[in-house]
Amino acid sequence: MSPIPESESDGVVACKTILASSVANAYTGEIKKGIEELGRKPKLVGFLANTDPAARMYAEWTGKTFCDVGFMFELRQVDKEELEDFIFQANEDDDVDGIMIYFPVFGNRQDQYLQQVVSKDKDVEGLSHIYIQNLYHNVRYLDDAKTQKSILPCTPLALVKILEYLGVYNMILPYGNRLYGKTITIVNRSEIVGRPLAALLANDGAVVYSFDIDSVQKFTRGEGIRLRSHRVSDVDVKLEHVVPTSDVIITGVPSEEYKFETRYIKDGAVCINFSTAKNFNADIKTKASLYVPSVGKVTVTMLMRNLLRLIANRSSKNQ
Amino acid sequence: MSPIPESESDGVVACKTILASSVANAYTGEIKKGIEELGRKPKLVGFLANTDPAARMYAEWTGKTFCDVGFMFELRQVDKEELEDFIFQANEDDDVDGIMIYFPVFGNRQDQYLQQVVSKDKDVEGLSHIYIQNLYHNVRYLDDAKTQKSILPCTPLALVKILEYLGVYNMILPYGNRLYGKTITIVNRSEIVGRPLAALLANDGAVVYSFDIDSVQKFTRGEGIRLRSHRVSDVDVKLEHVVPTSDVIITGVPSEEYKFETRYIKDGAVCINFSTAKNFNADIKTKASLYVPSVGKVTVTMLMRNLLRLIANRSSKNQ
Repeated sequence: MSPIPESESDGVVACKTILASSVANAYTGEIKKGIEELGRKPKLVGFLANTDPAARMYAEWTGKTFCDVGFMFELRQVDKEELEDFIFQANEDDDVDGIMIYFPVFGNRQDQYLQQVVSKDKDVEGLSHIYIQNLYHNVRYLDDAKTQKSILPCTPLALVKILEYLGVYNMILPYGNRLYGKTITIVNRSEIVGRPLAALLANDGAVVYSFDIDSVQKFTRGEGIRLRSHRVSDVDVKLEHVVPTSDVIITGVPSEEYKFETRYIKDGAVCINFSTAKNFNADIKTKASLYVPSVGKVTVTMLMRNLLRLIANRSSKNQ
Repeated sequence: MSPIPESESDGVVACKTILASSVANAYTGEIKKGIEELGRKPKLVGFLANTDPAARMYAEWTGKTFCDVGFMFELRQVDKEELEDFIFQANEDDDVDGIMIYFPVFGNRQDQYLQQVVSKDKDVEGLSHIYIQNLYHNVRYLDDAKTQKSILPCTPLALVKILEYLGVYNMILPYGNRLYGKTITIVNRSEIVGRPLAALLANDGAVVYSFDIDSVQKFTRGEGIRLRSHRVSDVDVKLEHVVPTSDVIITGVPSEEYKFETRYIKDGAVCINFSTAKNFNADIKTKASLYVPSVGKVTVTMLMRNLLRLIANRSSKNQ
């Protein structure tokens, strides 16, 4: 897994580009086996309530990916004003195992409302309040008997799996401490990716600098490994202060204009972009040891994993 | 209750200004009686996690108002990073009957996350997802046996109570249809006031035009009174098209610069401002029949009402 020099058009650079599909493929076997053991095709329903052709293409791509692996996928295009009623219907429908919504729908806080309308028992995206709350507090199960696992939000989970694949998680260290000694910069502090991701990585022992448009926060696990969850503090530092010491840089800025400045990055850093826009410049390969230009395929794989987990949770609840 | 001409410095204008305290006082007796019947002082805990002196003043004012009526109030000033843990503590503490948070804390979506951390059993503000969802779907109870009432968000509830006080609700019409025939303009479509308010008023029979910064929506009850809840559609109209036919205008724009244009308002309209900024010009009294310049005191009274209702819900749950 050590970085291997790779031939590029401009000569030899010591950076290896890792495609999301490589990481995703590592999980396909496990998922197919899960479906086989279940003995039926689990069904995911995707709701599309905007008329953006790009959104439809993305929805159809996720659908195809699900079907290829052995799931059933049904895309339901509905009017945004009727979406809520359709979600209720799907919540109650025993034929539906999982539900996802292609956002944006309204493009404002009403979308967060809709997210919470999806029953937690069918929420493949892991965005129900209780799941996010459990993540922040390092609570792994929904029940005291520990039979139902709490679902992790799909994109933060995908990023953790990518970091594991890249060897950033040190498997020799004890579970829960496998990022100890690592400094990680995250540019994005959204409630669905950046902030939960920072908490997850801090819970695993990393020091995380979390940048958003107007502030910087430092996520740590507090003193030693005694605390049950991460600590957050506002810090007065600039990107150029922390990037040179960062082992990992994760970007998620939804803008084609935004570019992360390569010159601050230390040689050999691991660079991952989860935005659909290219947040790193082409010269990233002169600095990074491992570069992951996009994560979408891993995210979809994590949706599949979450779907199987939801089904397992439901069956253990009914026992 | 009919509008009485009132002397003003510039002569006689046919507008009556109604202070929020008048509406609030109409509920004080009921609330005091509720406390008396309970036989103990219910306890509200307010969490303040910002350092704005104005926020502290507001918090202390609500506290004083609660104490004056016979409640216990405890203001807990905490670090914003520790707020979540303190909420958990208060959720579990049997001595705490109700919890409220003085927002903004982070001033971004993390605040919506925190809102959902408050247990629904102690949420005096009525902002838990299930309460808002019930409001949109005209669901009045939490349980099938109809022993536990769903809590309404405090500011929308305050505005309904103000409209009742002002005689806009026609008590001769059947319950659920008392705004039939009324056209109402609301300038604000936030998730905590404007949108739930529009739904509540449409559920009671009004046609509501809901304006936010970039769109206009029309809330109705659909065809006749058959549907269980309101309908929403995007409409392509401007303020000046609907204001001249509006019986009621409700504003909530948090900006000192914003002023609602008096000239569009029809003679005799009811005008209510729930922003802390003055959204109406001084000449509003040349048009309005009834003018309510602020609603804060009614909102606090509704917090008290919700607190008593939460206690009643808890006791019926334990029976």
